[in-house]
Amino acid sequence: MATNGVNGNEKGTEKVKRGLAQMLKGGVIMDVVNAEQAKIAQDAGAVAVMALERVPADIRRDGGVARMTDPKLIKEIMDTVSIPVMAKVRIGHFAEAQIIESLGVDYIDESEVLTPADLDFHIDKHAFNVPFVCGATDLGEALRRIGEGAALIRSKGEAGTGNIVEAVTHMRQIQSDIRMLTTMGQEELMTEARDLGAPYSLVRFVAEHGVLPVPLFAAGGIATPADVALMMQLGAQTVFVGSGIFKSGNPAKRAKAIVQAATHYQDAAKLAEISEDLGEPMVGINCDEQLDQPHFADRGA
Amino acid sequence: MATNGVNGNEKGTEKVKRGLAQMLKGGVIMDVVNAEQAKIAQDAGAVAVMALERVPADIRRDGGVARMTDPKLIKEIMDTVSIPVMAKVRIGHFAEAQIIESLGVDYIDESEVLTPADLDFHIDKHAFNVPFVCGATDLGEALRRIGEGAALIRSKGEAGTGNIVEAVTHMRQIQSDIRMLTTMGQEELMTEARDLGAPYSLVRFVAEHGVLPVPLFAAGGIATPADVALMMQLGAQTVFVGSGIFKSGNPAKRAKAIVQAATHYQDAAKLAEISEDLGEPMVGINCDEQLDQPHFADRGA
Repeated sequence: MATNGVNGNEKGTEKVKRGLAQMLKGGVIMDVVNAEQAKIAQDAGAVAVMALERVPADIRRDGGVARMTDPKLIKEIMDTVSIPVMAKVRIGHFAEAQIIESLGVDYIDESEVLTPADLDFHIDKHAFNVPFVCGATDLGEALRRIGEGAALIRSKGEAGTGNIVEAVTHMRQIQSDIRMLTTMGQEELMTEARDLGAPYSLVRFVAEHGVLPVPLFAAGGIATPADVALMMQLGAQTVFVGSGIFKSGNPAKRAKAIVQAATHYQDAAKLAEISEDLGEPMVGINCDEQLDQPHFADRGA
Repeated sequence: MATNGVNGNEKGTEKVKRGLAQMLKGGVIMDVVNAEQAKIAQDAGAVAVMALERVPADIRRDGGVARMTDPKLIKEIMDTVSIPVMAKVRIGHFAEAQIIESLGVDYIDESEVLTPADLDFHIDKHAFNVPFVCGATDLGEALRRIGEGAALIRSKGEAGTGNIVEAVTHMRQIQSDIRMLTTMGQEELMTEARDLGAPYSLVRFVAEHGVLPVPLFAAGGIATPADVALMMQLGAQTVFVGSGIFKSGNPAKRAKAIVQAATHYQDAAKLAEISEDLGEPMVGINCDEQLDQPHFADRGA
């Protein structure tokens, strides 16, 4: 049963929503497609699970329209675990979000991994009680999503590839954009907000504080403990692991290793130990070799 | 002597600044280059004068770098009239603005009519006690300036031409952009803010209220009572008249007529009467015929 539901009669405030996101920091959020996997994730120490019908690697392989998960499956997973449960909805598909919220899930991921339902507009996330997480490839995109009400930002990366390169690119871009803002004078910020296409008030916040106003997590292509350490040293506070665990040879062992890596991400010797004998990792895809692959990160901006 | 100075020890609040701008509504603000002209403007019923060394038509004709006016001239004009006195500074030239503010003028126009001092950044107008007016050609530009602290927006038009065509274009564009926003759903506003390059919070304000959060005046090429009526029927709450009065055959008579036109802008018969026998208007320039002319409206964005 999900524990952090904010399905009260009043709207979840930004403060409450962001606070819930803070509670996930330092942990690992795992994609699961059934109650059995959810149990494995919880036993491994995941701070939350993402309930979905197909992991990104299968969505990528099978093609077709990827939609929100069957509510029955989400409820089964919620009944199985005590950690928070997240579920994905299509970009702009506010009706899917209304349905998922009614189930009492803890977070909604408005995700580019599913087929977008709207090419121009994202969900007005202020209209919901449940907190949302959204992907971003740069600071402008992150701040637009926060302005729409997202309580948590993750790098988009390139889900379902087992390839970390795009998550690194997006995380570095966001961090670099943030550092740039902190070096600017007050009078430069409006032009920069215009060029980023970002809400001016949020640009001013970032310039002053040097961080996003919400937590920043990493996602998209994370498959090994080393990937976790890389992303967290690059500034991610938590990692989403999608296909990387249950597409590998020994999911239970890899899940535990991934969680340990999030704790010990600055301890190379420990990471070496954690990385030993995990069995086959997911095979993965080189983003630049298989150009017929759909590019999820380009969805929504 | 200027009456509305806000040169206290505390910063002028946005509310105070915008309130001062509200007080000019329904009137005419006239460019003057000496105390004698300022007296003529005041006697004609102008609500404020803009003190400058050269009217835009002369800046246009003479070329060279156009800068803030000699403080001595501004002080002479302030000593001569009891209505508010404005003065222009170059785009981005915050030191000129500091100097002009220290004189106790009532408004500063960060104006594209002068030679820009900064090609990328405008003045951080929040840092001043005195209210600022800025020009705009569309809603995104208007909202960027308001976000930077402008208390009043005017169309840029094309100053010094005596040609109303660009003021009409800019005023219609701003009004059209505003109307468009009011028709949009909440979830469309972030994308629109991105595309306008405008602060999201101000985009939301305009979408909700259907007006700018500050007064909207017209400027740039207004030369006749009919021009005044045209701009005010298009939604301007006040008009700036630059070269149109003192470059005409009978400035005192034309000044009075222009002021009357601002009052009777919806009364065609009265406007016909006002427009009679005003003497020679300024000759003017066709913007599309004299392509070697500098295009002031392109300065700053």
